[in-house]
Amino acid sequence: MLPRQRILLGIDIGGTSVRVALAESPEHILGQQKLASPAQEEPAAMVEIIGNAARELLRAAGNPPLEAVGLAAPGSIDILLGHVANSPNLPLYHDVPLRDLVERELGAPVVMDNDANAAALAEHYMGSGQGVQEMVYVTVSTGIGTGIITRGRLIHGARGGAGEAGHTTIKADGPTCSCGRRGCWEALASGKAVAREATRRLQAREESTLAATARERPNGIDAQDVRDAAQRGDRMSQAVLDDASFYLGVGLANLVNTLNPELIVVGGGLTQMGDELVAPAFNTCRELAFPLHTTGLRLEVTRFGDDVALRGALSLAQDLAAKE
Amino acid sequence: MLPRQRILLGIDIGGTSVRVALAESPEHILGQQKLASPAQEEPAAMVEIIGNAARELLRAAGNPPLEAVGLAAPGSIDILLGHVANSPNLPLYHDVPLRDLVERELGAPVVMDNDANAAALAEHYMGSGQGVQEMVYVTVSTGIGTGIITRGRLIHGARGGAGEAGHTTIKADGPTCSCGRRGCWEALASGKAVAREATRRLQAREESTLAATARERPNGIDAQDVRDAAQRGDRMSQAVLDDASFYLGVGLANLVNTLNPELIVVGGGLTQMGDELVAPAFNTCRELAFPLHTTGLRLEVTRFGDDVALRGALSLAQDLAAKE
Repeated sequence: MLPRQRILLGIDIGGTSVRVALAESPEHILGQQKLASPAQEEPAAMVEIIGNAARELLRAAGNPPLEAVGLAAPGSIDILLGHVANSPNLPLYHDVPLRDLVERELGAPVVMDNDANAAALAEHYMGSGQGVQEMVYVTVSTGIGTGIITRGRLIHGARGGAGEAGHTTIKADGPTCSCGRRGCWEALASGKAVAREATRRLQAREESTLAATARERPNGIDAQDVRDAAQRGDRMSQAVLDDASFYLGVGLANLVNTLNPELIVVGGGLTQMGDELVAPAFNTCRELAFPLHTTGLRLEVTRFGDDVALRGALSLAQDLAAKE
Repeated sequence: MLPRQRILLGIDIGGTSVRVALAESPEHILGQQKLASPAQEEPAAMVEIIGNAARELLRAAGNPPLEAVGLAAPGSIDILLGHVANSPNLPLYHDVPLRDLVERELGAPVVMDNDANAAALAEHYMGSGQGVQEMVYVTVSTGIGTGIITRGRLIHGARGGAGEAGHTTIKADGPTCSCGRRGCWEALASGKAVAREATRRLQAREESTLAATARERPNGIDAQDVRDAAQRGDRMSQAVLDDASFYLGVGLANLVNTLNPELIVVGGGLTQMGDELVAPAFNTCRELAFPLHTTGLRLEVTRFGDDVALRGALSLAQDLAAKE
């Protein structure tokens, strides 16, 4: 008889979508679903969507027994308790025992971690970080989050909060962040920051082709609109992106001087919009960090695109299965 | 016959003084010397001073065989090569093989590390950090440096540069730092920053009793002068210290959100001037960092005063002796 194949489930909860994948390993995905995220609703809605997707995927695979589940969620994850402590992109989640709720829904052991931590693990196991002991993953999308690996292992700190570098002050007198602080990295270099700054400039009646776009967007412009306008030659939009790119580089340099990694991998929506934003940020980082720290430093964009945290969730599940 | 007693030498190189201690263990110091630091001179002068002090201390102890030497130095230390890569407080040191130079001078194995890393080790082995797996030591003196411990071990990153958080940008449009960047933590919250800002305000003819003090200081006022004036009720001096204290707290909060430590211990000259600077900085840190991160967080001042890095150097020597 063949040894029983391991069946893992990976879940990546985002502010816009939820991804669920059934896999034999993080490299070998059997099936996956992408669903609209009920991010603005109570946690019960999230658990239901995850449960339905998981059951469909399992049914399509012939109902194999589920061995372990990895759950990547945005925000501060209390790994001791398995709680989402708080999450700007899941506004109703405060100390929600999401790990246990999903465990009860699926009847299989669940490990939960921050989505940037999960992504760091994916890069370390099967991406640019294979064999790299000192590395950081940085997600730059609606917000900014990081996953830090030293001596080949993710660091969590005392409670799982390590890696919230998106909420470090890099411009003490800068704009207010969604977390309430001023001048956070996330408030200056995320997709949200780009949209906010472009909107502010439009409201100040700066000349821009974005003004026409804004009239077509009842919920406001987003970073992609700004990028599209910049591509068409709009100067104001280009200035907004240049600023975001500079601050992205400043924050990367801060991580480099603090942690001296061999590798930083960036991912997330803003890094997928093209090289114009990322390449100058990498240059700024190299200019600002110390020579000891930048010698031999690799700065790269994830090769996994939107799937990096989902693959990380499967990596978490794989680690959990190996422990049991 | 009794087992041979281990004899360790610890050296703490600073911008103002050099401390050398002979010890059986970091807790049991046999003798120590404090000498003026030839920080502005070529490395050979430093090596000579260290050699003379070591030989005197050994002679006074009956010339026991030296088993291991720990060397704590300011700046970026390349631990792979044993070089001082660069150091704002040792301006002529660029890629200086200081570990090997001291090894040759003393004829005993030498381990070199950054002084804040050494101090973190001292706190972890025999100070507030005993039994604490996740902690940071922050030295706030002429400059700012940090030593980061995760899972009970110092992190060095790829080359030994981890912990240079003094050179992270916290106010992107802030004053120029000695490293050339703008708005570094060190440029806003160190002793140097306090002296610079007070001097700037005096030059802008702000009213202050410090003006009289400045006329008695051919080399300029220092942070202690500012603190003394504030104690006597000088408002301008108090405002300068309040700013430094605020930025000290901002930088601490950045470390807390990035690393989620259980404990931060601060030391160095600026923290020894009294509670007025440190207590509000700790409050600012708690206000700015996330609740998950500040719940259970301890913020303390070192109990070892000026000796913390010297004890750390002895801890390094002890670790080296244990390996051999």
